[in-house]
Amino acid sequence: MQKSQIKNSEWLWGIHAVREAWLNPNRQIHSLLITDKNHKIVDEWGVAQGLRRPSPDNVDRDIISRRLPVGAVHQGIAIQCAPLEEMFLSDIIIKSKTAETMTIVMLDQVTDPHNVGAILRSACAFGVSAIIVQSRHAPEATGVMAKAACGALEYVPIIREVNLSRAIEALQDDFFNVVGLDEAGEDISKIKKSEKTCLVMGAEGPGMRQKVKETCTSLLRLPTNGPVATLNVSNATAVALYALRG
Amino acid sequence: MQKSQIKNSEWLWGIHAVREAWLNPNRQIHSLLITDKNHKIVDEWGVAQGLRRPSPDNVDRDIISRRLPVGAVHQGIAIQCAPLEEMFLSDIIIKSKTAETMTIVMLDQVTDPHNVGAILRSACAFGVSAIIVQSRHAPEATGVMAKAACGALEYVPIIREVNLSRAIEALQDDFFNVVGLDEAGEDISKIKKSEKTCLVMGAEGPGMRQKVKETCTSLLRLPTNGPVATLNVSNATAVALYALRG
Repeated sequence: MQKSQIKNSEWLWGIHAVREAWLNPNRQIHSLLITDKNHKIVDEWGVAQGLRRPSPDNVDRDIISRRLPVGAVHQGIAIQCAPLEEMFLSDIIIKSKTAETMTIVMLDQVTDPHNVGAILRSACAFGVSAIIVQSRHAPEATGVMAKAACGALEYVPIIREVNLSRAIEALQDDFFNVVGLDEAGEDISKIKKSEKTCLVMGAEGPGMRQKVKETCTSLLRLPTNGPVATLNVSNATAVALYALRG
Repeated sequence: MQKSQIKNSEWLWGIHAVREAWLNPNRQIHSLLITDKNHKIVDEWGVAQGLRRPSPDNVDRDIISRRLPVGAVHQGIAIQCAPLEEMFLSDIIIKSKTAETMTIVMLDQVTDPHNVGAILRSACAFGVSAIIVQSRHAPEATGVMAKAACGALEYVPIIREVNLSRAIEALQDDFFNVVGLDEAGEDISKIKKSEKTCLVMGAEGPGMRQKVKETCTSLLRLPTNGPVATLNVSNATAVALYALRG
């Protein structure tokens, strides 16, 4: 492995996250560490024609653990790879012009990588086209996020925007219905679905920031109640995506 | 603190989990450790008349950390308390006879305490009356679960059953519609809602065990698709509870 290849690289681990990265033609992979028992699995994945994939380095579990953050549940498999190419808001807006329906998710300072990973996974399952995050408060720890996303990181692009309110306005100019999830909103189960939707989620506790909330086209709430009436942010996002689906 | 009080005790931590335990008249609390900044918060909670609550031990963050599992995000507050009194399936069946509607959740070998905690939280928000788990494969690490449940552990009882298939049959005898979430099922968004529902969730990956699946009244699936079509188990439970609500 040449040094130049490792520059700006990241580790991904766990069967599902590695599998989807391995099969993703847009993902450049530098190295693959696996334990004995995973050889067969990787053989079964195969390599698409023309795709460059490294030969596996057969190593002990501990060697893999030492390359990864403490406590990473790697299941005996990890890759070192280049980050995916960045996508921009303008890309998604261009794409939306020819799409019949489109849903995107915006995360206002939701930073916990486990939550963002689970959101990516639900987003993928409900056909979300992209996730927009604030560049300054973006989730870190790609590997942890990718593991929680169970492979969905390869399919749902993450767009980083400096100013989320401005991004909302750009989406509204393109006829997106931008709905923020907020306790003060209307019951989500009672609204008419729109063709182009951007769902905005705030961080647990503080919720959306004031400016972001004010810029949304409308606010919606989940029909929950009781002494603990709020959901974990990834659960709330999944429920809202189900409720808003076309 | 007497030694006898500490027998069979558990630690809970984090503002929300501790708050709901503190206010729960059915929760016996032995000790409260807090940092300076949390004194005001606990004062605001107050103590209901007749409820015995310990005076806070004002300590450094590190002292709290040392009492708890490594990495516990305790926010400067923790309690040592007795486990809640056990509830039995027969209790819930008796309760269901006079209830107009009732929803319960059964977890077939879902053991990750973060997931079970998030499920408890969503269950509470959607008015679920109890969660049934298998006694041998019950979630461990109460504190981690309670933290993820954000206080919901105090409101949604956990019932431990040796044989889940037999529990399903008991619920069916009591006119519960027992629906298992499974990819082979009918689209959950297209079914008629029932008055008494038990939602059965299997572990991620293997899903429900064969016997449990066969005993369910029917199988339902979430309307997801794409390359990563499954949700995290807590997200899936939340979506199913929303879809099944009365």
